[in-house]
Amino acid sequence: MEDLIKCHGKLEFENLAIRIVKRLEWLGTFAKDPGGGITRLLYSKQWTDTQRALKSWMETEGLKVQFDEVGNLSGVLKGQNHGETVLTGSHIDTVKNGGLYDGQYGIVAGILAIIFLKEQYGMPKRNLEVVSLAEEEGSRFPYCFWGSKNIVGSAIKKDVENLVDSNGVPFAKAMSKAGFAFREEKKAPRQDLKIFVEVHVEQGNVLENENKSVGVVKSIVGQRRFTIEVTGEANHAGTTPMNYRKDAAFAASHMIHEMLNLAKQYGEPLVATVGRIDISPNIANVVPGKAVFTLDLRHIDKHVIVHFTEAFTEKIKDISREHEVDATIEKWLDTDPVPMDPKIVEIIENHCMEKNLSYKVMHSGAGHDAQIFAPFIPTAMLFVPSHKGISHNPDEYTEPDDLAEGVKALIGTLYELAYK
Amino acid sequence: MEDLIKCHGKLEFENLAIRIVKRLEWLGTFAKDPGGGITRLLYSKQWTDTQRALKSWMETEGLKVQFDEVGNLSGVLKGQNHGETVLTGSHIDTVKNGGLYDGQYGIVAGILAIIFLKEQYGMPKRNLEVVSLAEEEGSRFPYCFWGSKNIVGSAIKKDVENLVDSNGVPFAKAMSKAGFAFREEKKAPRQDLKIFVEVHVEQGNVLENENKSVGVVKSIVGQRRFTIEVTGEANHAGTTPMNYRKDAAFAASHMIHEMLNLAKQYGEPLVATVGRIDISPNIANVVPGKAVFTLDLRHIDKHVIVHFTEAFTEKIKDISREHEVDATIEKWLDTDPVPMDPKIVEIIENHCMEKNLSYKVMHSGAGHDAQIFAPFIPTAMLFVPSHKGISHNPDEYTEPDDLAEGVKALIGTLYELAYK
Repeated sequence: MEDLIKCHGKLEFENLAIRIVKRLEWLGTFAKDPGGGITRLLYSKQWTDTQRALKSWMETEGLKVQFDEVGNLSGVLKGQNHGETVLTGSHIDTVKNGGLYDGQYGIVAGILAIIFLKEQYGMPKRNLEVVSLAEEEGSRFPYCFWGSKNIVGSAIKKDVENLVDSNGVPFAKAMSKAGFAFREEKKAPRQDLKIFVEVHVEQGNVLENENKSVGVVKSIVGQRRFTIEVTGEANHAGTTPMNYRKDAAFAASHMIHEMLNLAKQYGEPLVATVGRIDISPNIANVVPGKAVFTLDLRHIDKHVIVHFTEAFTEKIKDISREHEVDATIEKWLDTDPVPMDPKIVEIIENHCMEKNLSYKVMHSGAGHDAQIFAPFIPTAMLFVPSHKGISHNPDEYTEPDDLAEGVKALIGTLYELAYK
Repeated sequence: MEDLIKCHGKLEFENLAIRIVKRLEWLGTFAKDPGGGITRLLYSKQWTDTQRALKSWMETEGLKVQFDEVGNLSGVLKGQNHGETVLTGSHIDTVKNGGLYDGQYGIVAGILAIIFLKEQYGMPKRNLEVVSLAEEEGSRFPYCFWGSKNIVGSAIKKDVENLVDSNGVPFAKAMSKAGFAFREEKKAPRQDLKIFVEVHVEQGNVLENENKSVGVVKSIVGQRRFTIEVTGEANHAGTTPMNYRKDAAFAASHMIHEMLNLAKQYGEPLVATVGRIDISPNIANVVPGKAVFTLDLRHIDKHVIVHFTEAFTEKIKDISREHEVDATIEKWLDTDPVPMDPKIVEIIENHCMEKNLSYKVMHSGAGHDAQIFAPFIPTAMLFVPSHKGISHNPDEYTEPDDLAEGVKALIGTLYELAYK
């Protein structure tokens, strides 16, 4: 790998963009899915093969490499002060038929950044560590952030031990087959971790639309998710006059239309999505007796989320009365917004300005491992653009030059945090 | 059966209501579905058993009984004029898990009416015939009105010969196994049929809501059915700002809401139903890229159907532009309204008035065999109430007294048509 890294004094690698792409493709070879893209589910063969390959690469680069109990893989460049670690990295798992960028780009970026810093500046003041987090997506088992939650000590064994995957394989069995075990919950989490910086693809289209290469994340949105169930009365489409109907689809479409209009009136950064609609009996010539739909609501300010919840609840009540249907609202997800550490955000922004990078300070509308670290240690995040915002899809794509800009921004950030 | 029919001079049977119910239940025993209600699909064992049972009953009552080529079962009370037949009856097939009333009530009503008239008035001027039509629902094979279309000569062999049922059984094989064969298409249809009168449950809630026992149908609605496909762009629910979205579900709910509001503005008897909505990918945290929904549109006046079609098409275009999505509209059903014969409608109405029956002149929002006969011979229809409008369901129910009122109205009508 010696020829991979060539420093030209101004944070320039020779062919950096191409090298990142090659590494992403190389990691992809361990998890190619015949159905398209890559599938690397927690503790699967693809997952194990990829972690082992990463381990070899990191060892070749001279990092001190180790797995923790649950399968998070770390590569450390020791600093003068062994007790303080600046951590970077992202998750290695993917969704089913995912792309080459979500998750693994943050790991490749971290490794390349540390290699560069080592070559350029030698030993840092603080340890520099890159982590390939075991799991974030919740795609094999219905549990997210298994990797990061184990590092900060917030993973709970009893929350996962009864989970099974879609083939009926229990969580613990999958884990032990991959060679890992539950972390002893009484054991204190690592005390050396002082900072976490994650690099990730945006999974949205803001950077691309605004023609920026790097996003400096100042906050991760809070989310609420609801299921709204509208119960009317199924009836014959021909023989039931409009005024005798209790049409659940009519009522639901009215609600959805008004709720999303309201969301647009609230303005950015509020986003509201009705992603799922299920009508019953869902037959062309039957007036629907039931409509169930979801609402996904996100904002960086909890107060706005609460206020919007009250407003749309009122709307649903009014519209239910108008259509003579019943409606219930079930809230099944409620996470608070997570601000990134303002000092690190400032450091990153200053660095981007200094280096004349094309950047935008923004929020993250998606959840990331950074939100698990943030309540415990100062945390920050960098984005690179996602072409058309496509994500969780084999067509996921980021321009190689933008991938390179992201790594450069990370290098500068880690230098500020670990060498100064 | 002698004791079944007792005339008391004013079209009164002793225990008529109970006797109708017992006959419906008896027919139901040949097609009981362990999953609920009755299932009597064309040419199935249940179908054959029921037709045979009906044949025995009609023979016992002294009617001249015969099957035609395709399995329509007729019972004839010969009149003085052998060349003219007044036909009544309905279909014997049911949907899967149907109820005891849809179809078979019209056959039971016809048999009991003819028995009564024979006992009361002897030989009619014209033949009186009750038919148990082979098929109307299209529940086994995707083809409706197989029974009545064969009688009027509009059934086309090539339209059904390639059809298979859900078990892969071809139409012709099912038919020959039941002992029937295609009708020779070149053969002219029966020339003796002069009038058809069908009695059926309303399958709607108008009669019940207006507290009437009998509906006198003056027209069967015309129908159009459309599939509207809205194509936007699937995106991440968190990372795609509202203004960057092409949300197919938002656009579709806007369209549905406006279209159905428009339908209400048009007023009765227009009915518009969005019975089916399918969202893609239909995941809570993904902005939907596609929404497909149906529109079922009915009215007794073709001009109104055409006008509404133009109006909603314009709305869909406008809303598509507003949401920056594409929309296509496919029309896949288009049947004209079918008026019933005004003279027979008048005869029925006069009879109902005379006999002080609780009736309402109305249209049929559902399709019936009567619409197949109407273009060929003067045709009329009578309805009895459906409790809560429930139909195609084991819970289908009509008050026994209303069942009796329907038979009385039919008796009076057949008397006017066959004896005068």
